[in-house]
Amino acid sequence: MKSADDPGLLDAPSHLRERVTAWLDERREDAVDLLRRLVGAESTQGHERAAQQIVAEHLRLLGLEVDVWEPDGPTLSRDPYFCSPRTDFSGSPNVVGVWRGAGGGRSMILNGHVDVVPVGDESQWTRDPWAGLVEDGRLYGRGATDMKGGNVSLLLAVAALKSLGMRLRGDVIVESVVDEESGGAGTLAAVRRGYRADAALVPEPTGMRIFPKQQGSLWFRLTVTGRAAHGGTRYEGVSAIEKAVPVLAALARLESDRNAPIDDPLYAGTPIPVPVNVGSIKGGDWPSMVPDRVTLEGRLGIIPGETVEAAQAEMTADLVALADADPWFADHPVRLEWFGARWLPGTIDPDSELMRTLSARYRDVMGEDPVIAASPWGTDAGLLAAVGHTPGVVFGPGATAAAHYADEYVEIDRVLEVAAIVALTLVDWCGLAE
Amino acid sequence: MKSADDPGLLDAPSHLRERVTAWLDERREDAVDLLRRLVGAESTQGHERAAQQIVAEHLRLLGLEVDVWEPDGPTLSRDPYFCSPRTDFSGSPNVVGVWRGAGGGRSMILNGHVDVVPVGDESQWTRDPWAGLVEDGRLYGRGATDMKGGNVSLLLAVAALKSLGMRLRGDVIVESVVDEESGGAGTLAAVRRGYRADAALVPEPTGMRIFPKQQGSLWFRLTVTGRAAHGGTRYEGVSAIEKAVPVLAALARLESDRNAPIDDPLYAGTPIPVPVNVGSIKGGDWPSMVPDRVTLEGRLGIIPGETVEAAQAEMTADLVALADADPWFADHPVRLEWFGARWLPGTIDPDSELMRTLSARYRDVMGEDPVIAASPWGTDAGLLAAVGHTPGVVFGPGATAAAHYADEYVEIDRVLEVAAIVALTLVDWCGLAE
Repeated sequence: MKSADDPGLLDAPSHLRERVTAWLDERREDAVDLLRRLVGAESTQGHERAAQQIVAEHLRLLGLEVDVWEPDGPTLSRDPYFCSPRTDFSGSPNVVGVWRGAGGGRSMILNGHVDVVPVGDESQWTRDPWAGLVEDGRLYGRGATDMKGGNVSLLLAVAALKSLGMRLRGDVIVESVVDEESGGAGTLAAVRRGYRADAALVPEPTGMRIFPKQQGSLWFRLTVTGRAAHGGTRYEGVSAIEKAVPVLAALARLESDRNAPIDDPLYAGTPIPVPVNVGSIKGGDWPSMVPDRVTLEGRLGIIPGETVEAAQAEMTADLVALADADPWFADHPVRLEWFGARWLPGTIDPDSELMRTLSARYRDVMGEDPVIAASPWGTDAGLLAAVGHTPGVVFGPGATAAAHYADEYVEIDRVLEVAAIVALTLVDWCGLAE
Repeated sequence: MKSADDPGLLDAPSHLRERVTAWLDERREDAVDLLRRLVGAESTQGHERAAQQIVAEHLRLLGLEVDVWEPDGPTLSRDPYFCSPRTDFSGSPNVVGVWRGAGGGRSMILNGHVDVVPVGDESQWTRDPWAGLVEDGRLYGRGATDMKGGNVSLLLAVAALKSLGMRLRGDVIVESVVDEESGGAGTLAAVRRGYRADAALVPEPTGMRIFPKQQGSLWFRLTVTGRAAHGGTRYEGVSAIEKAVPVLAALARLESDRNAPIDDPLYAGTPIPVPVNVGSIKGGDWPSMVPDRVTLEGRLGIIPGETVEAAQAEMTADLVALADADPWFADHPVRLEWFGARWLPGTIDPDSELMRTLSARYRDVMGEDPVIAASPWGTDAGLLAAVGHTPGVVFGPGATAAAHYADEYVEIDRVLEVAAIVALTLVDWCGLAE
């Protein structure tokens, strides 16, 4: 927020707000059309090109400097922060648009990912997942809430300011990245290409809440070993399914031990601030055989401020300790692999200027105080902070509960409200040139 | 065994034994060659034709009446005892050879299955699973022990008696059936075609033990329901993996409750006479999601003398009782399906004449008492008894522990010994015509 001795901007919010919101209200149908086209581009992993062409074209029309490139897999995959199931990014370009500031202001990265998770079981959808149908003020489709609705908010915010003839002092860097859903290779590639700023805003589906802290997460794979035998003489074998039961219990204790000390007020009322989740189990392939192997895959939540290494060490120690209660595990230790996705935790001071500015503009537009919370999942804000030294906040229009599910949707009013809040925040953060 | 007032046969065993074993010893290489060719025919389910052609040709050369037919799937699959994952038996003919007796004697079915289980993880094999390599008196390959070694014993037994010019009074029916490994559709088809006898011998891999009782088994599939949620807010969901843990405990109690009352001396020393085995578990497909479904597949052992229905009812009741401890199961009951394979239990009196005859001929050939036990698995002897009213015994040369594993093998000496024992048993049971 501006201090009282900066009279030139003191009244701006009220005046600006009316101009910005009026401009946005007039473009509501254009916004819906843009979002519908982005949803219709079906940008699952490896198929982001069509959606990115829409974004790049839009940024060019706004007059931004547009940079489109496919990350170089061989180089990127050697990066210690690289985490993706693929190393070939053909068909998956990043798009960055830079709105160069007049100088003398703070810069801001607006980062949204364009990749979406698969449709899943299509029979559970009651609407075409790619049609972008609008009903009762909601636009339905895969990616509507996570996070193309948020991306449209960013594009609208820049469009509003530019259309209203404003010029900012700091740079605004709009990043439309790939590969967030599998660990952030797109944002990593943008960081390595040199895009950094004084702050970042990532409009993931927070349901209009503001998240100054995001937990990170790591995927793990545990392999529990047994010894095969015929089911009719199962006492001659050792069931890996039976041995998986104490492993599950150890993971439950790990979660409990890690969460008990968390007293951050942002987690007040959250039953399990940083969960350890076992997402899949698989073992054995014949009913009449004793299974000799069970694989468990899950995600380990990383506490904001905690290092990945510390969390890994704690889990490793708990698995090693299984041997204390059952010597089977001494001879057949549970194998632990870190695989697939990884999201770094992120945190900025809830009292930082970015948070105060964003909260104030939220109040301006919404007429009430924002809910400030800690996110239950990781975002690219973690990478922006840890690798790009660009601390960020997560705040977006999407419905948290709708992400990744059938009949995913976003409320169009929320998309426009976030656009207004972001536009006004940019004015404050980057400063007006005139 | 013959009574003392049957002087014509009293000395026969000793005389016969020498002739039979001498004949078999001379044909050792022929026996190995036959077994190698049968193993090399790769008769996994649906691909039994080549192996059956070898068997049929062999039976024709011996002068038996040979019947080759593909079971009629549509008819067979309506049979209440039918149990198979398939209803099309194209490429899977049964072969039956009948050695018609002179009359006035008891008949005997010699039943062996020609289908073999898949090779499995080929990297675990140190020998070609289909080459039938011989090392240190063992022939290696998929099906060598389960149960082509036993089948060769049967063919040798008949060949020895015929080659030595003997004629039996009762019929000998050699059945080379398909589909045993998935529930006995081949033997069922043979029964429905009219093949019955006064007794049966099934040379499954008993490791030279004689099994007058065989437990049956049923395959079951349990579906445990949870409620999906994001892993980061897993407390909003219900993990089907967590809910599977008490289900596993219920199955362990079921096994314990069913085995505690078993006091049959044939099970003395068996840690779990009739196991309940959970062979596979599968649930969830994304590390960061709470899994909403877990599937468990396993086999429920059926106690000899118990009905399938009684065993099913006991398991069903235990699963319903889960709701007493956790109301989740009242609203989301575990789904129980009986699927795939089913083997009926079988039992004959350990003091019956068939058992005494077989045991005596075992002593003649092996010079020691046989081990009499109850089998830890089901065989087609259950169907022969329950549907074909042909009570049987299971006794074969295969190594029990090698069945279904990598580097499956059979000891060639055992194949020849079982051939001799079966030949001499046929003489006693069916009677000599001259």
